[in-house]
Amino acid sequence: MPKFLHLSLIILGLLCSFTATGVRADGTVSEETAECLECHSSLHPGIVKDWQNSRHAAITPGDALKVKGNARKISSPTVPENLRGKAVGCAECHTLRPGEHADTFEHNGYDIHVVVSPPDCATCHREETTQYADNLMSRAYGNLADNPVYRKLQVSIIGQTTRKQGQIQYAPANRLTKADACYYCHGTKLEVTGTEVRDTESAGELEFPIISGWPNQGVGRINLDGSRGSCTACHTRHAFSIEMARSPYTCKECHVGPDVPAFRVYEASKHGNIFSTFNKNWNLTSVPWTVGKDFSAPTCAACHISLLVDTEDEVIVKRSHRMNDRLPWRIYGLIYAHPHPQSPDTTTIRNSDKLPLPTDFKGGFASEHLIKADEMKTRAGTMQKLCLGCHSQSWVRGHWEQFENTIKETNAETLTATRIIQDVWKHGFAAGLDREANPFDEAIEKKWHLTWLFYANSIRFSSAMAGGGDYGVFAGGRYQMSLSIAEMQDWYNLRQAVEKRK
Amino acid sequence: MPKFLHLSLIILGLLCSFTATGVRADGTVSEETAECLECHSSLHPGIVKDWQNSRHAAITPGDALKVKGNARKISSPTVPENLRGKAVGCAECHTLRPGEHADTFEHNGYDIHVVVSPPDCATCHREETTQYADNLMSRAYGNLADNPVYRKLQVSIIGQTTRKQGQIQYAPANRLTKADACYYCHGTKLEVTGTEVRDTESAGELEFPIISGWPNQGVGRINLDGSRGSCTACHTRHAFSIEMARSPYTCKECHVGPDVPAFRVYEASKHGNIFSTFNKNWNLTSVPWTVGKDFSAPTCAACHISLLVDTEDEVIVKRSHRMNDRLPWRIYGLIYAHPHPQSPDTTTIRNSDKLPLPTDFKGGFASEHLIKADEMKTRAGTMQKLCLGCHSQSWVRGHWEQFENTIKETNAETLTATRIIQDVWKHGFAAGLDREANPFDEAIEKKWHLTWLFYANSIRFSSAMAGGGDYGVFAGGRYQMSLSIAEMQDWYNLRQAVEKRK
Amino acid sequence: MPKFLHLSLIILGLLCSFTATGVRADGTVSEETAECLECHSSLHPGIVKDWQNSRHAAITPGDALKVKGNARKISSPTVPENLRGKAVGCAECHTLRPGEHADTFEHNGYDIHVVVSPPDCATCHREETTQYADNLMSRAYGNLADNPVYRKLQVSIIGQTTRKQGQIQYAPANRLTKADACYYCHGTKLEVTGTEVRDTESAGELEFPIISGWPNQGVGRINLDGSRGSCTACHTRHAFSIEMARSPYTCKECHVGPDVPAFRVYEASKHGNIFSTFNKNWNLTSVPWTVGKDFSAPTCAACHISLLVDTEDEVIVKRSHRMNDRLPWRIYGLIYAHPHPQSPDTTTIRNSDKLPLPTDFKGGFASEHLIKADEMKTRAGTMQKLCLGCHSQSWVRGHWEQFENTIKETNAETLTATRIIQDVWKHGFAAGLDREANPFDEAIEKKWHLTWLFYANSIRFSSAMAGGGDYGVFAGGRYQMSLSIAEMQDWYNLRQAVEKRK
Repeated sequence: MPKFLHLSLIILGLLCSFTATGVRADGTVSEETAECLECHSSLHPGIVKDWQNSRHAAITPGDALKVKGNARKISSPTVPENLRGKAVGCAECHTLRPGEHADTFEHNGYDIHVVVSPPDCATCHREETTQYADNLMSRAYGNLADNPVYRKLQVSIIGQTTRKQGQIQYAPANRLTKADACYYCHGTKLEVTGTEVRDTESAGELEFPIISGWPNQGVGRINLDGSRGSCTACHTRHAFSIEMARSPYTCKECHVGPDVPAFRVYEASKHGNIFSTFNKNWNLTSVPWTVGKDFSAPTCAACHISLLVDTEDEVIVKRSHRMNDRLPWRIYGLIYAHPHPQSPDTTTIRNSDKLPLPTDFKGGFASEHLIKADEMKTRAGTMQKLCLGCHSQSWVRGHWEQFENTIKETNAETLTATRIIQDVWKHGFAAGLDREANPFDEAIEKKWHLTWLFYANSIRFSSAMAGGGDYGVFAGGRYQMSLSIAEMQDWYNLRQAVEKRK
Repeated sequence: MPKFLHLSLIILGLLCSFTATGVRADGTVSEETAECLECHSSLHPGIVKDWQNSRHAAITPGDALKVKGNARKISSPTVPENLRGKAVGCAECHTLRPGEHADTFEHNGYDIHVVVSPPDCATCHREETTQYADNLMSRAYGNLADNPVYRKLQVSIIGQTTRKQGQIQYAPANRLTKADACYYCHGTKLEVTGTEVRDTESAGELEFPIISGWPNQGVGRINLDGSRGSCTACHTRHAFSIEMARSPYTCKECHVGPDVPAFRVYEASKHGNIFSTFNKNWNLTSVPWTVGKDFSAPTCAACHISLLVDTEDEVIVKRSHRMNDRLPWRIYGLIYAHPHPQSPDTTTIRNSDKLPLPTDFKGGFASEHLIKADEMKTRAGTMQKLCLGCHSQSWVRGHWEQFENTIKETNAETLTATRIIQDVWKHGFAAGLDREANPFDEAIEKKWHLTWLFYANSIRFSSAMAGGGDYGVFAGGRYQMSLSIAEMQDWYNLRQAVEKRK
Repeated sequence: MPKFLHLSLIILGLLCSFTATGVRADGTVSEETAECLECHSSLHPGIVKDWQNSRHAAITPGDALKVKGNARKISSPTVPENLRGKAVGCAECHTLRPGEHADTFEHNGYDIHVVVSPPDCATCHREETTQYADNLMSRAYGNLADNPVYRKLQVSIIGQTTRKQGQIQYAPANRLTKADACYYCHGTKLEVTGTEVRDTESAGELEFPIISGWPNQGVGRINLDGSRGSCTACHTRHAFSIEMARSPYTCKECHVGPDVPAFRVYEASKHGNIFSTFNKNWNLTSVPWTVGKDFSAPTCAACHISLLVDTEDEVIVKRSHRMNDRLPWRIYGLIYAHPHPQSPDTTTIRNSDKLPLPTDFKGGFASEHLIKADEMKTRAGTMQKLCLGCHSQSWVRGHWEQFENTIKETNAETLTATRIIQDVWKHGFAAGLDREANPFDEAIEKKWHLTWLFYANSIRFSSAMAGGGDYGVFAGGRYQMSLSIAEMQDWYNLRQAVEKRK
């Protein structure tokens, strides 16, 4: 057959496969997926186009398994026979493990489930799923919902307010507010609450499950098969693009506020500056990811997750979806910065006051629940190895010295603020834990948590990423920290002056 | 004539037309415009280059009229004969309707006006101009300047302060401050206040009008022909680029502060994340705009304005420059979120307290001035149809349920804050409307409007766009709302304690 | 020799020169640099790749000197003979002037210094270095560290807090905190504090200097040859890219906080909007930089630094690294906005109260230390000439009128706030300069500096760049200014009420 004819046939085949009205089962798309596309490509052109442009549509697991070495994207040693020869389409994911999913329903002859879960993805991506299950994020739902101290903080922020005897009272937020607030990022608990019949344009009356907590893509979502997490939090459906997961914008969705201003610090840092100027020329899709060649400054993923190699293809750091693998310190203060917890489930931690917190109010660590010095050294070493890809030894050491000093100093500032609030509680100007009251809900208590939840955290993120002095000082950092401490003391003094004259 | 010669002549013609020193009247550029360019292309190379790269320079209205169907960009049924055959250049716009513009002046033999207005643009774009005139934004000047309640809020923010008897007094801001502040976005009222003679480099002494309120491109600008609005607010002169109007950055200019943080929420949302990562590959200029093919996540324009089609060229939503056509709720609280006003002129609204506000202080709606349930349903349906382009029915319904719950809950929080300020007024700790005083200008009153103007609004924008839990909770949303309510109560309690001892 | 063979040899040569394991000394790379690369290209692939992609690697000073006119990038009239024929590589910069650098150390037979300083860069870029030395930024270290008033402000922000007799006490921040905070941008004072021996992978035990204050790229860094400044603050090593220096992200690193929100205002402005939408199509590397052709809206560099020409190659403004050359006003209030200082060293300024401040507390200027009216007019004229590249005369004048009104009005607001704090001091509610106390460290004093350091500055930046009404009003500008003034008065009133009852 002449070459050009061959080529024409391929093009013709492609045209047939991807018409607007659906996809024929020729080629790599399965018959089942082709049937899905028949209706859904006109119902949801956005979803279908994203998938058509994705790697999942372009390659079969069988071919993906043939890739050897660092370029391999499938981490499972093998993939079930029946899935190997077809592209990863609608049916391939949404009909997996039907017996496990509470939202499985009969749909035009297929057992479909709405919410694809990490164990579904593990069919091909087992290693990432396993690592992620051991990642703090996978427990984001329970670590918040099942910790009585954090629940008190939660209600003081999102609770419904009323006034009673000159005080603000907080009733628990309703299900929808929770889903729209904290659990948007932490993940909701999905539940099938019933079914409904909808009159569809293309197929008449059909029955669908009603899912409470849906939609949600929070990192610790409790799925309908009982599993935890949502891969689509970062690998946005239905493109599942590695370029997107490696871009800092993905992390921004949940790391943008003053409590975890990772993205804001990054974009104000030299790294962010280089990214913003040059990322248009970078290769954000190549696996493995080559320092210097594919990109000239790290994104969030580069430092925290990705497999990086040097220009001689030597591995600098291995890929890890246990995202604290390179982090000795947890700079998110609760209430002080501390060594990372050993277990992703932090509800079992107890500090010296028997509270489920990694530090006590004096700044002591709940050490038996936290990683030890040698593990901290290992993790710091991994991160520093990565820094050395673009920086000299003395640069890295100097930076690290500043960073650890900042941890120490911001913890000291948190201690100053905490001593004021303890005096406030002692004098009865607010009701804290000693009176079995919520220690977070009165005005002066809220000013107290501003100091550690917002300002100490912001300073530490800024220091960790060399995020620019201006950010860490003026944009919600040291300036605001010192202001809040002064205002706490001022309020305390004024309150004392008023009380004395009673 | 051989083809290559023909091509060469075209190129030669183009080169002649667009030399640095001006544009010859050959081809499609009119003699009048060529004369403008003679001087202005070296005086303002930036303006001229923008225009040269624009669609206005590349196509004549006559040719644009030949386009049929959804791709057509001219909405007027016809265009005056004399304008059909030439590109839309300097003279074509700046000499239209000379008798109507107060700033028309004689300039090298032409009657030129400085400020091109929507009725000028209506020559070709009648439908957009008509829709826009019915758009809330077109009344942004009067809706602020002619509402006595909003004027009180305005003076409390931008008024000149002095101290008198232990209180801050606010004098009205001067003309220039107003133009630099509120009316930068709302639009200034332009007025010709005189003329001046300038000694120009290229043509000696020339007379020009002096225009008070200029420069300005606010959305509700009062023009020198008495019309309202400024098309260049979004369609930036002199490129008038559809790509720019469809980019979210355009909306950011006036929707970035905590009162209307639409852009900030967008860029922290999944939609914004997809835009930031992939818009380099999108087609932001094609008309109509195809979901999935041209773009894979909406920008502001996609949801609120643009004509969208699916991959089969079926219209999903029609274009509308009446930008609330797809919005049942006005989530910008005044002081509560409420159904959209019926008329773009909101000065005629009266609430149950006879105040020109869409809601009363107890949260009741000024219903007879607001759209009814059926119109709300129609508008919600239009928006949801658009969502379905990329989301399933259950996804859209779940999202909408969360959004409407947020409206209800944030209105309830505003009520808590309002009850505190009403107690403050009742006890005479601040002077409100009951004492015929400005209800917005004292410290505690300002803390009150923070709760609804900044925080309730931010929470609602975040909820509307699924803007990420972190944004809506910590970046100026629920956290700050609950803090401010607690601080209001705390101030009230302290003030009472002090008073009791008088 | 046949052409294709010739080409193959060139390609082969390139491949040999830039292998992953190093660079051969063939071609333009010097033997010394090739030797550096032998180890460092695998040690730090990121550094080496950046350099390999840079102009420094692609052209020799000898060739660069041959460029005539506005396109020339080397400003020194000549370059030492021995440097002319080779690319500007590792050795070329890091071995310059070895006797001058305190960090020079013996390294594999070479005298290497770690920190390359402006006098090193002056070898080729003399004019920029000379201009920069006269730039306010080059004195950023001393202007902060050696001014006793600013040091008081500094300690009140970054000092270590303790509580003593009901007051917050501030101990000076330690060396590392300073480097991580104010001096990250202002620049640290580098000092060699010793040496250390490190066991290196490639060359066994080697001795290196230990440098206190390192890493740092602050604009006023005190270098180890005694010089001031860091070219890499903007021309990021080791790409030294003009594209990056011209992008607004570079300036953002130190101009992002509410004290100098230049970047935030820019990105919310029409200019920023155009940049964000279209910069993908711009030429950010061409020298000279042509308005309209290379870019259609200014970046920071365009207005403040770059050599701009019009489309006829006529110079609009000359390049200047004395960045206040186009600035009549210093809108960064200390404590009021004022004409720019005459000398880059601001420690010698004395106001009417003998304090080292450019304005006194009543708003009077320390005029003998500031530029005079004619110099202000010259600088305004330079900037306005630039504006005219894209705007008409009446547009520019109208904008300028608004801007100067904003300076006047914000200074008046600062005066209101200052009068309150003076009353506070007078009544002994806080201890100011009159009691030889820190005037910046108590809660009410901090609220006072919020008004001028954050809000008045933000309003002025917004006005200067036409940064959108929403930004200047609501995002940390006029709204917050009026709120803070009202809160200062409220605190003062409450404090008086409490005192009266003592």
